[in-house]
Amino acid sequence: MGAKYTIPHEVTSYECDVNGTMKLSTMIAIVIKVSEEQSDVLNRGSDFTQQFGVTWIITHYETFITRLPKVNEKVQVTTQAKQYNKYFCYRDFWITTDSDEELVHIESIFSLMNYTTRKINSVTDEIIAPFGSEKITKIKRPPKIGALTDPKSVPFRVRFYDIDSNHHVNNSVYFNWLIEALDYDFLTTYEPQYINIRFDKEVEYGNQVESLYEVVEQEEGKKTRHAIKIADKTYCEAEIEWQER
Amino acid sequence: MGAKYTIPHEVTSYECDVNGTMKLSTMIAIVIKVSEEQSDVLNRGSDFTQQFGVTWIITHYETFITRLPKVNEKVQVTTQAKQYNKYFCYRDFWITTDSDEELVHIESIFSLMNYTTRKINSVTDEIIAPFGSEKITKIKRPPKIGALTDPKSVPFRVRFYDIDSNHHVNNSVYFNWLIEALDYDFLTTYEPQYINIRFDKEVEYGNQVESLYEVVEQEEGKKTRHAIKIADKTYCEAEIEWQER
Repeated sequence: MGAKYTIPHEVTSYECDVNGTMKLSTMIAIVIKVSEEQSDVLNRGSDFTQQFGVTWIITHYETFITRLPKVNEKVQVTTQAKQYNKYFCYRDFWITTDSDEELVHIESIFSLMNYTTRKINSVTDEIIAPFGSEKITKIKRPPKIGALTDPKSVPFRVRFYDIDSNHHVNNSVYFNWLIEALDYDFLTTYEPQYINIRFDKEVEYGNQVESLYEVVEQEEGKKTRHAIKIADKTYCEAEIEWQER
Repeated sequence: MGAKYTIPHEVTSYECDVNGTMKLSTMIAIVIKVSEEQSDVLNRGSDFTQQFGVTWIITHYETFITRLPKVNEKVQVTTQAKQYNKYFCYRDFWITTDSDEELVHIESIFSLMNYTTRKINSVTDEIIAPFGSEKITKIKRPPKIGALTDPKSVPFRVRFYDIDSNHHVNNSVYFNWLIEALDYDFLTTYEPQYINIRFDKEVEYGNQVESLYEVVEQEEGKKTRHAIKIADKTYCEAEIEWQER
């Protein structure tokens, strides 16, 4: 397992929603920043990977939330490259309080994508070695995401501010589309405690996406299922379990 | 004139758009954070003003941009309460580089609004004294914003993540609506160098707003005019001058 890399972060009011807890999109943007910083420190930043015609993409997050970071809270954001196989790198993130209470744990899957072909590249030693993660042969499969049966749908235009300097719609933006499909009462009554999300295809600037969702009845708490689609093609699927705030 | 208050800020990639320069909405959110911090340091934070049944609102920004802060740049964000009269407080902001080059200068007008009546309250000594700003009798009027003659219009729903812990649509969100009305070519060719924006009414969660805009032809650079409307009522007006990037 690789070395951990940590930065402190103080949660600002503009990073939080009406509940005073961190927006999911901001939370993802911040953890990704920490992994980018670790790559830079190890001289494996985007300038280095670009030499090989590849860039990191994230295909999956499994997120376990004890509670969301709160406005003005001082937290530590940690990342660790854990393992990798031929095509997939397994990286974890944690958000903890200053007294080391775990608030959020994220297990993610990264791959290298070829800029030109847009296909997955195999993971090379030159890029991965400094992270010190363990080479494995096993392919780890996250839990399956249940199919939608009778979803409702809300349209979203991809905005100029949704694309990053690589002309990609940042992964964090998908969380806005999932969340904004739900209503005010739901979002102020429940807080996510588990999120399983898979990214299948790249959404581009100018696209109009449909954010599909349905609430799955269950004995305790709530579960929602989500998909991001363009013209019946699935770009992203997610399942979120919620607890009362 | 009041004391200056400064915090350092390192510009992250998720705070920037495809041009690698800071999103206007993020820039405004950050400067407001600095004024909130100054208020907290002076024991005049929201807990204090709430005792009097009032909250700060911002009715105007005049923004002068030499260049926008860039990704990974280390900047200083400074605020200073300059002057006030019976109903208006004049507060300035600056974003400067670590070598003291001025990137952005913002002149803003704050007022105190009564929570219950939603009307403007007079500025009281108890709230304003610690900022050390100068009492004046003059009412300063920012430049007039030209009327739209033949605007185009783009609709936006107010999103859950657009409202802050006070249940207001944060001022910074209006900048998203202005910017997103313009197209990719315009936004990657031109950078704002002057923004004059006035906030007239409060937009609420659940509203659908229209972002109206037109490009005003002029000899050098570009000028755009904007309005945010709901059902023919004007909530915000703005004028932006642009220079080539």
